[in-house]
Amino acid sequence: MTGIDPSDRASLLAMEQALAAEYTALKARGLSLDLTRGKPSSSQLDLADALDGVLGGNYRDASGTDLRNYGGLDGIPEAKALFAPVLQVPEANVLVGGNSSLTLMYQCLLYGMHFGLSGPESAWSRSGTVKFICPVPGYDRHFGAALHLGIELISVPLTGNGPDMDAVESLINSDPAIRGMWCVPRFSNPTGEVYDAATVTRIAALGKRAHPDFRVFWDDAYAVHAFDASAPGLDSIWSACEAAGTTDSVLLFGSTSKITHAGAGVAFMAASKANLAAIREHLGQSSIGPDKVNQMRHVRLLKDSAGLAEHMQKHAALLAPRFAAVLKALDEGLGGAGMGEWLRPKGGYFVSFDTRPGLAREVVRLAADAGVKLTPAGATFPHGKDPQDRNIRIAPSFPSLKDIESAMEVFVACVKLASVRQMLG
Amino acid sequence: MTGIDPSDRASLLAMEQALAAEYTALKARGLSLDLTRGKPSSSQLDLADALDGVLGGNYRDASGTDLRNYGGLDGIPEAKALFAPVLQVPEANVLVGGNSSLTLMYQCLLYGMHFGLSGPESAWSRSGTVKFICPVPGYDRHFGAALHLGIELISVPLTGNGPDMDAVESLINSDPAIRGMWCVPRFSNPTGEVYDAATVTRIAALGKRAHPDFRVFWDDAYAVHAFDASAPGLDSIWSACEAAGTTDSVLLFGSTSKITHAGAGVAFMAASKANLAAIREHLGQSSIGPDKVNQMRHVRLLKDSAGLAEHMQKHAALLAPRFAAVLKALDEGLGGAGMGEWLRPKGGYFVSFDTRPGLAREVVRLAADAGVKLTPAGATFPHGKDPQDRNIRIAPSFPSLKDIESAMEVFVACVKLASVRQMLG
Repeated sequence: MTGIDPSDRASLLAMEQALAAEYTALKARGLSLDLTRGKPSSSQLDLADALDGVLGGNYRDASGTDLRNYGGLDGIPEAKALFAPVLQVPEANVLVGGNSSLTLMYQCLLYGMHFGLSGPESAWSRSGTVKFICPVPGYDRHFGAALHLGIELISVPLTGNGPDMDAVESLINSDPAIRGMWCVPRFSNPTGEVYDAATVTRIAALGKRAHPDFRVFWDDAYAVHAFDASAPGLDSIWSACEAAGTTDSVLLFGSTSKITHAGAGVAFMAASKANLAAIREHLGQSSIGPDKVNQMRHVRLLKDSAGLAEHMQKHAALLAPRFAAVLKALDEGLGGAGMGEWLRPKGGYFVSFDTRPGLAREVVRLAADAGVKLTPAGATFPHGKDPQDRNIRIAPSFPSLKDIESAMEVFVACVKLASVRQMLG
Repeated sequence: MTGIDPSDRASLLAMEQALAAEYTALKARGLSLDLTRGKPSSSQLDLADALDGVLGGNYRDASGTDLRNYGGLDGIPEAKALFAPVLQVPEANVLVGGNSSLTLMYQCLLYGMHFGLSGPESAWSRSGTVKFICPVPGYDRHFGAALHLGIELISVPLTGNGPDMDAVESLINSDPAIRGMWCVPRFSNPTGEVYDAATVTRIAALGKRAHPDFRVFWDDAYAVHAFDASAPGLDSIWSACEAAGTTDSVLLFGSTSKITHAGAGVAFMAASKANLAAIREHLGQSSIGPDKVNQMRHVRLLKDSAGLAEHMQKHAALLAPRFAAVLKALDEGLGGAGMGEWLRPKGGYFVSFDTRPGLAREVVRLAADAGVKLTPAGATFPHGKDPQDRNIRIAPSFPSLKDIESAMEVFVACVKLASVRQMLG
């Protein structure tokens, strides 16, 4: 599709008619497709099916600990060794938890808010209003967890190489209520962008000027989730913090939810010794320790960094064609049309699409009426409110290739129809 | 050992000399034994080793849901069906969680305290001081979780058939700050007593006169954990609450920690529809849902109530001789001596021993010096403070029978030595 001249009303009207007819025909197909959530497909989950039975009756770790019994609040040594390189941190700074990194993040938010990560005096809630910086578009569940605990969210735009750090630094300098910042540094949800080296360095430096209880929540959810060999790596925030003397200012998170079984994986985190001590103290009040048996299943299945990399290649082989199908549909259907912008992720789970301002809700509505469910417009912004009503998160991992092609045909038609109608005014 | 005449100073002195010599000889054995925690033994854990591999590649539930993926915040239907009879509640009122009922209890405390189980206005913290009734001696981690969240604890004595309900009702009537009550209704930790029918009825009736946000935390941790066929059953608190119209006033908890693998089991709870709706709402902010795969492993292993009962018989066969060894040592060593009192549990994980007032710490110290580790005196009371310094919790599940016999020999000798020295003044 080539560029459109919005002043050529006759052409626009003809186009609208043709697109409306196309849309009606698509509706008549009676589709029921879903591009909403970043869920692994059944084939991806199959890759880890050996988990069940992988222990072969051996329920002990190398030190002889009986993994079936109570104890071990911060996870088994073998799991720490497996996941430390994922977060690019020393093993001694890793804590391995249950099946959900969201839970670890929520717990850290809770401890920061009500109990303090540096003693009771450091509880954020003692200072009244508490704010977090949220690069947008971002992950709705990050926003939800913080809001649930009464934290206010301040949006900062992403640039394609990470958050607008001028804006972040200016906020840190000017707003004393800021106590944290959400980051998804590699294959950010939903833009797919990777924070560049300068951004990582600047984020690590925030701890030098921010409030002493400020914490970066570094959710490296897609740390090893490239599906394109040319995907950029991510600099180690830990090393950058060590260089800046700010390791207390960062909490790192990850999980195998998109490596093994989404709901039955292993979550992990890393933090400074001081932060870990506080987290363990509070965690010990609410937990008998994580499921160490499931941690060992993961160790036996994935083995080490090489085994993990090999495993992720299999995911890449399943994901790459799905993302290619999305991008092909967008390129062929909307390339050069001035009806939207999109990024070309090399990893992660999403394609982030920006409509012309004011059309995201309408596109989502049109698609839903034609049987294609999209993530609600606005979901990628705090409070579900996209100020420009532009961003739509496309999640192609779960449906089949054929379904993605059908769904994208509908999506493109909806974007065109909504855009032309907007141009007509 | 027969009764002692404390006024017969010469005999006491002779006795002290003999006991001190015996104690010195025991010390010389260089024992290193541990009766501290209610951990299942290795043989008990072996009973559930088929869990790993039990799925045989079938990761779907009866409705076809892929258990490997995200979703299902309140657990899988098959697990609800398996655990509902354990708590004596309808399946529709069950929520199945992760590996720790302590976590479920902590979450409910957190929601009650800060978010409200009947809307934000119902958050306990809004009313200032919040108090819980704690039957004593009780479970240290119940006390710890409540204290962590800033809840004050009020002790009420246990009677052998449950809490002193006159005291409980009087507190409910007189103290408007009370918002909850801890209960371990069957084989209470550590006394092993079972709440009788009248007590269950009276607890169910509390909701009629208590504050509307009052909740009984009914931790039925040992619901199916009898090791003696003559053990009394427990009336259904749920049925009693239904009869009283107070189902909103009770939250029930249980787990397979002492059924399958202690650290890798499945926790569950039950509550009214209104309470469950609130719990799910808050839980959804911090969780991607529980490990449904592990839930299904438990369903496949235990199958149903009959399968569970059969499984528990195997635990009973391992536990009964251990408890018999403890009671035999106490009966033979201290029976009729006036040096302590103990209960004869028919299930659960503990024998509760009361020394003469003021001696629990000393006995624990003497035993430790002779290589036998006991739960710290006071641990069974809020803040670790036993007002009479009497109660010692003996946990015989984990050590071998031979080790229990050795440890109890030391224990009895320490009780005698401390008692005689106290009598000497």
